Amino acid sequence: MSAILSLNAGSSSIKFSIYRYSDEPSIVVTGSVSGLTASQQYLTFTSYKPSGEVLESIKNKEIECPDHDSAFRIFMEHVDSKAGEKRLVSFDDIAVVGHRIVHGGANARPLLITEDVYHELDVLSDLAPLHNQHALDIVHSCIARLPNAKNVAFFDSSFHMTIPRHIYTYPIDLDVQKRHQIRKYGFHGLSYAFIARETSDYLGVDYGNLNIIALHLGSGASACAILAGKSVNTSMGLTPLEGLPGATRSGSVDPSLIFHYHTDSSRMSTTLSKDIHLTVAEDILNKKSGWQSITGTTDFGVITKRAFEEKDELAKLAFDMFVDRVSMYVGQYWVALKGSAAALVFAGGIGEHGTELRKAVIEKVSCLGFTIDDELNAKASADSDVIIDVSKKDAELKTLVIHTDEQLQMAKEVIALQL
Amino acid sequence: MSAILSLNAGSSSIKFSIYRYSDEPSIVVTGSVSGLTASQQYLTFTSYKPSGEVLESIKNKEIECPDHDSAFRIFMEHVDSKAGEKRLVSFDDIAVVGHRIVHGGANARPLLITEDVYHELDVLSDLAPLHNQHALDIVHSCIARLPNAKNVAFFDSSFHMTIPRHIYTYPIDLDVQKRHQIRKYGFHGLSYAFIARETSDYLGVDYGNLNIIALHLGSGASACAILAGKSVNTSMGLTPLEGLPGATRSGSVDPSLIFHYHTDSSRMSTTLSKDIHLTVAEDILNKKSGWQSITGTTDFGVITKRAFEEKDELAKLAFDMFVDRVSMYVGQYWVALKGSAAALVFAGGIGEHGTELRKAVIEKVSCLGFTIDDELNAKASADSDVIIDVSKKDAELKTLVIHTDEQLQMAKEVIALQL
Repeated sequence: MSAILSLNAGSSSIKFSIYRYSDEPSIVVTGSVSGLTASQQYLTFTSYKPSGEVLESIKNKEIECPDHDSAFRIFMEHVDSKAGEKRLVSFDDIAVVGHRIVHGGANARPLLITEDVYHELDVLSDLAPLHNQHALDIVHSCIARLPNAKNVAFFDSSFHMTIPRHIYTYPIDLDVQKRHQIRKYGFHGLSYAFIARETSDYLGVDYGNLNIIALHLGSGASACAILAGKSVNTSMGLTPLEGLPGATRSGSVDPSLIFHYHTDSSRMSTTLSKDIHLTVAEDILNKKSGWQSITGTTDFGVITKRAFEEKDELAKLAFDMFVDRVSMYVGQYWVALKGSAAALVFAGGIGEHGTELRKAVIEKVSCLGFTIDDELNAKASADSDVIIDVSKKDAELKTLVIHTDEQLQMAKEVIALQL
Repeated sequence: MSAILSLNAGSSSIKFSIYRYSDEPSIVVTGSVSGLTASQQYLTFTSYKPSGEVLESIKNKEIECPDHDSAFRIFMEHVDSKAGEKRLVSFDDIAVVGHRIVHGGANARPLLITEDVYHELDVLSDLAPLHNQHALDIVHSCIARLPNAKNVAFFDSSFHMTIPRHIYTYPIDLDVQKRHQIRKYGFHGLSYAFIARETSDYLGVDYGNLNIIALHLGSGASACAILAGKSVNTSMGLTPLEGLPGATRSGSVDPSLIFHYHTDSSRMSTTLSKDIHLTVAEDILNKKSGWQSITGTTDFGVITKRAFEEKDELAKLAFDMFVDRVSMYVGQYWVALKGSAAALVFAGGIGEHGTELRKAVIEKVSCLGFTIDDELNAKASADSDVIIDVSKKDAELKTLVIHTDEQLQMAKEVIALQL
């Protein structure tokens, strides 16, 4: 069997999925190691029969795993020893590894990783020290551990390279922008590509005519205006910090705020690995802000519960802040699409599971014509379908929930690349 | 005659207006000194007969004027020597001086300036070192030169103190916000108060039922959502830097952008007066960005001309950037008002004189129902009426141009205060 491995490395977790290499890649094994920045790590692992039935399922098994490379080794061993017994897949089968890399600079397409490309990716890490390093470590592991596989870099920024110049340009010195590659990049691109394709299929609209507003709402959150199947604006910017707040991210704030917050904010932070060059300011705004700084928890589900069931004032504040910021982007992108949007799509952990959040956002943007059916909305959070329509019956404008899948998107794009 | 003096001190200019102290304050003298940060200063001065006819008019007379206090002294001398001959007004007539002060912290109302209040204003300058200092210098001049007049501080932030907590709160550490008085304040409040009152009168809508989107677009630019006569959101934030770009201001950018721009951005800037404590970052983002950094000029009229008549690429880029950012706020605030806006109002230097700008913005937001009549729009920029309707005939949603007047707003509020 020939297989594709999709790898998705974040700062505190890594997700792995193996697919059969075929026109419609089907899942063989998927798993994750989480807690990489905490004291305890957990392995989750599910293997599937060719029929799609679950063969083996492990959930949050306590393991000891010091770093990303070890996580990869543990996953490999687990695949080889467990799924291997059933002859489902072995690591020798892996022909291509897809790596999700957050910041791809101005690269509009995936890149086959050669030595030159690896160097280019390394240079790009200066643009996104907080986001690219772990993915690069894993590229390194794969080159060493899977010498026969091809490695492909998929960039979360690529999908947004269609944004027009007057939108991606910042109102700052043009020479400085050029010299330091400063522009709006945007992220969550694999997710938006997946969302756009699924929505086009669901609505029966040609991909090239697809106009939607998409929301990827997770511990990192963003919004995207998609016109004629292409990103024309997105809320994240030079880095994922701009735009919506997240679990620990401030999102857009007054650019001078940090100088009121901290007197020496451009000093290098020492709280992170010494290999990561980051200012105190970037550390505060990326890691010590967001709804955790208001409520003490990064879990938006807990915040929602506290806000509605326990009537906790600060939880309600954080909930309302997020609803406000999200609905303001829906308003912006309604105008960006000149009122032509066919659907508003919720995706990402909060977008997919946040029943109250979806209801509250739709209530705020109902003046644009969006609707939500309370019963369908409540059911959607537990539904496993890829796409769920939660609009009111006969609504012209659709409100959709999509279980986005960045790893599957990479597998599909690997096939399309015809390597 | 009893009179009110309204003072409006910016960093490079100061505007003065004297009104008769009556229920409907009428103008006696108005003038300005500009070029205070340049090598040449200019005096503009107009005096009016009680009938409203112009008595004397001086435009951009070259003068030598080293600072704000000297500008005030020159204006006083001019009033006393010239208008004084005609017995229109003398400085002894001035009963109340209204001072426009940009940052008023959480003060929702004007304050009679006592020694305690002066101290409070001085402390507030830490929040807005770039914006409050000149106004405070002028307060000082007035106390010395007009010992019998009452001095009242009007804050550009007061109008926005009705913004709800979940909108004015930033997603950052709550203790830090409290300790450093960090929140969205918003500015241009005197202008928005004037706009709201004029629009309510023009539309024949009770002030308490007035829902509009207002744009104050000048070398500093902002947008405001007004619901039931109250500000419920505005684009500026902790300082006037957040939100829309301006002549030399970046507006909202990725909060980590400045750390890619400059390696030592939290160092204190030495380009400004040593009394003003400002980081290099704040200096760059406030003074060396905006459309000047794209086109080389702060004059949006020149940019528009270059963009349309000379087909200058960078001028068109700056024009399109501004139109995009402005129209995105109209979309946001349409949602903030739940689609209930009765009018979109253009004010400020660019809002009042930017024929092409208004046309381009309305074209972008036409999906919300706003219209513009090209002929009325072209005429509006030269019209001296306070309010000009430029919507298409029979349009339900109005597009209005208002010649906003912060000094007159202060005079009206002085009367209302019944000091």
